[in-house]
Amino acid sequence: MHSGESKLSKHPTKSPLEKKRLDYEVPVFPILKNIQNAYWKDEGKYIKLLAHETQHSPPLRVGVMFSGGPAAGGLNVLWGLYKGLKDIHSESALIGFLDGAGGFLEDRQIEITDKEIAEIKNQGGFTLLGTGRTKIETEGQMRQALEVVKKNRLQGLVFVGGDDTNTNAYHLSKYLEKEKARCSVVGIPKTIDGDLKGGGIEASFGFDTATKTYSSMIGNLNKDALSAKKYWFFVKLMGRSASHVTLECALQTKPNLAFISEEVQKKKITFKKIVEMVAKTVIERAEAGKNYGTTLIPEGLIEACSDMKAMIDACNTLKKEGKSAKDLTGEEKELFDSLPPAIQKQLQKDLDPHGNMQLSLVSTDQLIAEMVEEKVKDKKGVEFKVVPIFYGYDGRCALPSNFDATYCYNLGMIASILVRDRKTGFMASVKGLDQPVGEWSGIAIPIENMMSQEERHGKLKSVIAKALVDLKGKPFKEFSKKRDKWKIEDHYESPGPIQYDDEASIGFSKTLTLGLEQKKSSFF
Amino acid sequence: MHSGESKLSKHPTKSPLEKKRLDYEVPVFPILKNIQNAYWKDEGKYIKLLAHETQHSPPLRVGVMFSGGPAAGGLNVLWGLYKGLKDIHSESALIGFLDGAGGFLEDRQIEITDKEIAEIKNQGGFTLLGTGRTKIETEGQMRQALEVVKKNRLQGLVFVGGDDTNTNAYHLSKYLEKEKARCSVVGIPKTIDGDLKGGGIEASFGFDTATKTYSSMIGNLNKDALSAKKYWFFVKLMGRSASHVTLECALQTKPNLAFISEEVQKKKITFKKIVEMVAKTVIERAEAGKNYGTTLIPEGLIEACSDMKAMIDACNTLKKEGKSAKDLTGEEKELFDSLPPAIQKQLQKDLDPHGNMQLSLVSTDQLIAEMVEEKVKDKKGVEFKVVPIFYGYDGRCALPSNFDATYCYNLGMIASILVRDRKTGFMASVKGLDQPVGEWSGIAIPIENMMSQEERHGKLKSVIAKALVDLKGKPFKEFSKKRDKWKIEDHYESPGPIQYDDEASIGFSKTLTLGLEQKKSSFF
Repeated sequence: MHSGESKLSKHPTKSPLEKKRLDYEVPVFPILKNIQNAYWKDEGKYIKLLAHETQHSPPLRVGVMFSGGPAAGGLNVLWGLYKGLKDIHSESALIGFLDGAGGFLEDRQIEITDKEIAEIKNQGGFTLLGTGRTKIETEGQMRQALEVVKKNRLQGLVFVGGDDTNTNAYHLSKYLEKEKARCSVVGIPKTIDGDLKGGGIEASFGFDTATKTYSSMIGNLNKDALSAKKYWFFVKLMGRSASHVTLECALQTKPNLAFISEEVQKKKITFKKIVEMVAKTVIERAEAGKNYGTTLIPEGLIEACSDMKAMIDACNTLKKEGKSAKDLTGEEKELFDSLPPAIQKQLQKDLDPHGNMQLSLVSTDQLIAEMVEEKVKDKKGVEFKVVPIFYGYDGRCALPSNFDATYCYNLGMIASILVRDRKTGFMASVKGLDQPVGEWSGIAIPIENMMSQEERHGKLKSVIAKALVDLKGKPFKEFSKKRDKWKIEDHYESPGPIQYDDEASIGFSKTLTLGLEQKKSSFF
Repeated sequence: MHSGESKLSKHPTKSPLEKKRLDYEVPVFPILKNIQNAYWKDEGKYIKLLAHETQHSPPLRVGVMFSGGPAAGGLNVLWGLYKGLKDIHSESALIGFLDGAGGFLEDRQIEITDKEIAEIKNQGGFTLLGTGRTKIETEGQMRQALEVVKKNRLQGLVFVGGDDTNTNAYHLSKYLEKEKARCSVVGIPKTIDGDLKGGGIEASFGFDTATKTYSSMIGNLNKDALSAKKYWFFVKLMGRSASHVTLECALQTKPNLAFISEEVQKKKITFKKIVEMVAKTVIERAEAGKNYGTTLIPEGLIEACSDMKAMIDACNTLKKEGKSAKDLTGEEKELFDSLPPAIQKQLQKDLDPHGNMQLSLVSTDQLIAEMVEEKVKDKKGVEFKVVPIFYGYDGRCALPSNFDATYCYNLGMIASILVRDRKTGFMASVKGLDQPVGEWSGIAIPIENMMSQEERHGKLKSVIAKALVDLKGKPFKEFSKKRDKWKIEDHYESPGPIQYDDEASIGFSKTLTLGLEQKKSSFF
């Protein structure tokens, strides 16, 4: 199916800024300027691109697909991959599979040509191909994948996705090797959550743009808090398991309060305690004449609270015994009774397919707001007007920042060289992301090295574990060192909207997380 | 109280972009380059600045305050006013009253000097002074105002605010005239809602930045809808009476659906009908394979629905008779019964101080989402996953766009000339806003000309009526001409974040509303 035309017609008009971005010339690190001179040097834990003498290669046929939630820069992976393949041989072809792995298994595809590339340069979203949540996991799916690879005579298959996608890419690479398909499987680290990291991956793409987009809005709320002096903004941010987004946004905007799920889990901070902490800050600020503030809350926060988990487990056990939440005792009963009636009902009503209560459906920010309200409402001088806000979907498909646009284009090019050199089961990566682009190195990580054994559906499986916030890492340490100062005094920052001029300090700024992790120096 | 120091210390750090913005040189229209040559020419409905021979004036003492919700550009009004006063005489002084009219009546103030100005140029928020909702309405308040004017020997008082603030500024100007206070009262048209307009006011400041900020995020959601293809984004936007914000954002982003409260009210579109319209579109899109979309909803929408209003009125009448919602009959009963139980309860519980039901507390977007869900849940092929989102507070204190930064600075300068020339009861304004700055004219409107009689608290009062969306105006007509096309086909646009470079098409673009209203030409 060649439906590039109709797919693209979905975007009949580009905004002036989008048009301008088509012309942004993405920088590449030096070796990518002469792909034919590039070769891979084994560095033990990874392989690294170096320049050598020119090698001529035959044309390549490569397939690519997006997987999971969109992230800014994805279209530049396609562009870089296309550019690399054409640099390798002008007759190379790039096949884009539609709607993720689902479309791949059904061989729904378009060929990506100059015409498509001309429309997607530096643009936001995963629009050209779409994405999907289908996973290639079962033996049957692997076989189907092999069929599609054979039918399309693919020498390479590039998966743009997060931890699960790259895990499955690895298993598929093993399967294709076993079946002697001679098709390289390459992964590209994507996720706005920032939890695909470590072992040579310095950052997943999309994290930079998403956190800058959210921080821009949070910075505006900071200013509103200080101007109107009457609202408490409770900002919920994406990140169910990992709180990298909240941590980065907190570093960028310096809110009065911000919670990190990993810390809550590690230190066994109870939900009750969190409510108390917020209430205490609200009261202390009111005493300082400040009936306003900003609070950042990762969406998975309550799931990280030990008391909440214990209560839910107790409820689910009671259910199996034919009893109900009414039969809870002790601390679990106390916690359940302290929840607003609407939440109690929601928990008892919206059960998962196994009949269990689902903590994930509870709106963390609103729950905390309601319970804090209860605690502070009679305090003299306290006026607690909460405005709950959620940023998430609105940062996934933003126009990519110069950083993400560049990182992704370079990643795509690196992927093309991996396919050329028959490297399979690797994730493309860049070393030295905190440095200027001219000093970046192209590397590739054996996905196997990133894997560990995890129980999934009762079975042990080799998977890439999500990289959680490292409580001993520099970003969290900086945050925990400064946060007490932010509580009562207002140290708000407002980074403003993403700019696309190329100045290092603004248009090509990087996340503070990256800077702290790489440079190991204080930014304060 | 001279507490400039402590006020400013609230912003110990500026972000790199904020720092860069300090250096943005705001353009002014030619006459403002030589304020001493400017004089007012009477043009009948307004007075207009023209250049003549140089006149020397004594130093002036002027007070200024913010009023109501913050809007981007407010700090540039202070800067422009300060610059104008200093151009008039280097010994002029500007007094900033804190926390709005409340602080003014209590004479809480700072003197604004070069030091303060250096920190606020082109910055967001109302941070230097804060704002407030106190109104100067009663005889007692007028007397208090006179005292503060006398005590501070003010020749001018500048009110930065919306329709109510300017209404009260007018009444105060009359009072001060009567009392022979020789203090000019000048208004500056501020509101992100865009409803202070007409009679010579082409736009209120803040509307440009706010709608660009929201449209940037909505544009991202459009891309996410098209990429993930699984969410219906229900975006609620600020605007309780007027839907200018929603209209402008719709023109900028071309969502699948957008509602305009003024149209709903005029055409007596019922709430039931709105739910049906949304459900129909959801089903039709699902039939086209599109289980995703974007919908814009002004926050005051349900208050504009005749059936909702009738039902609430009937409930309140029943209450007075000692009955309750259970005693409703006919269509009112049917509508009430159709509401989700939680909303029924909320309406019956959260009464206003007079014991009446408050429609304004109901979350319009979530209510529509729930009721549409009910209607479409059993339809084959329909998957209706709603993500409710609210943009409002996050656009009021953004870094001002070049347009708002420039408009406000020019307005401030115009205000200084009004004070110099003892013009009182005027609103500063600019004519030709859709033209390049070099072609702008400085004008001032007698506030009296904008006023009409309205019933307030049972009494007739001269007030500035809110400018509602004109259903015969070009912006609404363009929208209504195109919207059917946007419903099923996807014509989404994504303007991207505000840019601060000075290119006319991007960094100095103006709202489509302004362009359509002024140029009377089609932008499509």
